[in-house]
Amino acid sequence: MSKGTLFILTGPSGAGKDTVLSRLKEINDNVFLSVSATTRQPREGENHGEHYYFIERDMFEDMITKGEFLEYAEYVGNYYGTPCAPVDKMLSEGKDVILKIEIVGAMKVKEQRPDAVSVFIVPPSFEVLESRLRKRGTDDEETIKKRLIRAKEEYLMAPEFDYIIINDSVESAVEELCAIIMAQRCRSDKRYVSV
Amino acid sequence: MSKGTLFILTGPSGAGKDTVLSRLKEINDNVFLSVSATTRQPREGENHGEHYYFIERDMFEDMITKGEFLEYAEYVGNYYGTPCAPVDKMLSEGKDVILKIEIVGAMKVKEQRPDAVSVFIVPPSFEVLESRLRKRGTDDEETIKKRLIRAKEEYLMAPEFDYIIINDSVESAVEELCAIIMAQRCRSDKRYVSV
Repeated sequence: MSKGTLFILTGPSGAGKDTVLSRLKEINDNVFLSVSATTRQPREGENHGEHYYFIERDMFEDMITKGEFLEYAEYVGNYYGTPCAPVDKMLSEGKDVILKIEIVGAMKVKEQRPDAVSVFIVPPSFEVLESRLRKRGTDDEETIKKRLIRAKEEYLMAPEFDYIIINDSVESAVEELCAIIMAQRCRSDKRYVSV
Repeated sequence: MSKGTLFILTGPSGAGKDTVLSRLKEINDNVFLSVSATTRQPREGENHGEHYYFIERDMFEDMITKGEFLEYAEYVGNYYGTPCAPVDKMLSEGKDVILKIEIVGAMKVKEQRPDAVSVFIVPPSFEVLESRLRKRGTDDEETIKKRLIRAKEEYLMAPEFDYIIINDSVESAVEELCAIIMAQRCRSDKRYVSV
């Protein structure tokens, strides 16, 4: 059996990565989401192995030393990272895996796994991004302004990735993501043809 | 505007290229088929510019000299070829073009146009191919046997192409072809992202 493909899904904050992924999961039970590890405490309703792998700081640092992360970062005093083992297990079983990750992490994974397929998702315009960030209501005015400046810088990274999805509607964005996944399965190095 | 993509559709005789293409045309009016040129006489019901460009031998040879074909071949005393001009006009207008062609021609086009996307379509098995060739009823026993031997040789060429579609049902084959076309439109070098 051919190995599965690792898809890296990235893009500026507010581009709609989570909405697209949750819709994808509803209609396509043939792809698997990678679960991150973190040293932060679980919040209410968060389950180990589903939302995150919750692990101790010592263990996380031990795993870093052993090179067992595809990427990791420290953020507000906690580690966050993508353990290689569960991803590689699924890939070797022929499953396609989607790793949702911010842009710097995406670049790190792409470097380690050049055969991964990277997808950069963007909102249709900065006006739409701004209105989405405001509607979300989680950020104050200054944070929104900072996020927008950051998003414009991040936009310039788009050509570094294999595919660009413009999230003007969830349905069309999911359709394009499904097409990218299906096309990848048709690649001649993924299909075994016997005579 | 970004340029369109040239898709080369090839595969052994009996793989179902024509069936897949005619179904694709029904559901996807966003791709255009390349029309071949030939020096043979038009048959009843064949229209110039639709089924073929019917041109004189002198003119065909003149076009060969000027390098105006993506590929050409002589078959039973007549020339057949793909003129560059109509294909390039559509591509420059941002249209995607599909060129259906036998395998040797496909290799020639791929050599001239390395940015073309090549798709190799195969029947699910040789048993199915054999039964399709028999059902078609156009060939005698010896010809069918020759076609099968040829098809097995051609199968070995599959890994040379970008994508492989296994035509076990017309619907799934068309779905995969549509996915390949849609994914190609999402490639970062085809999508213009403005800040």
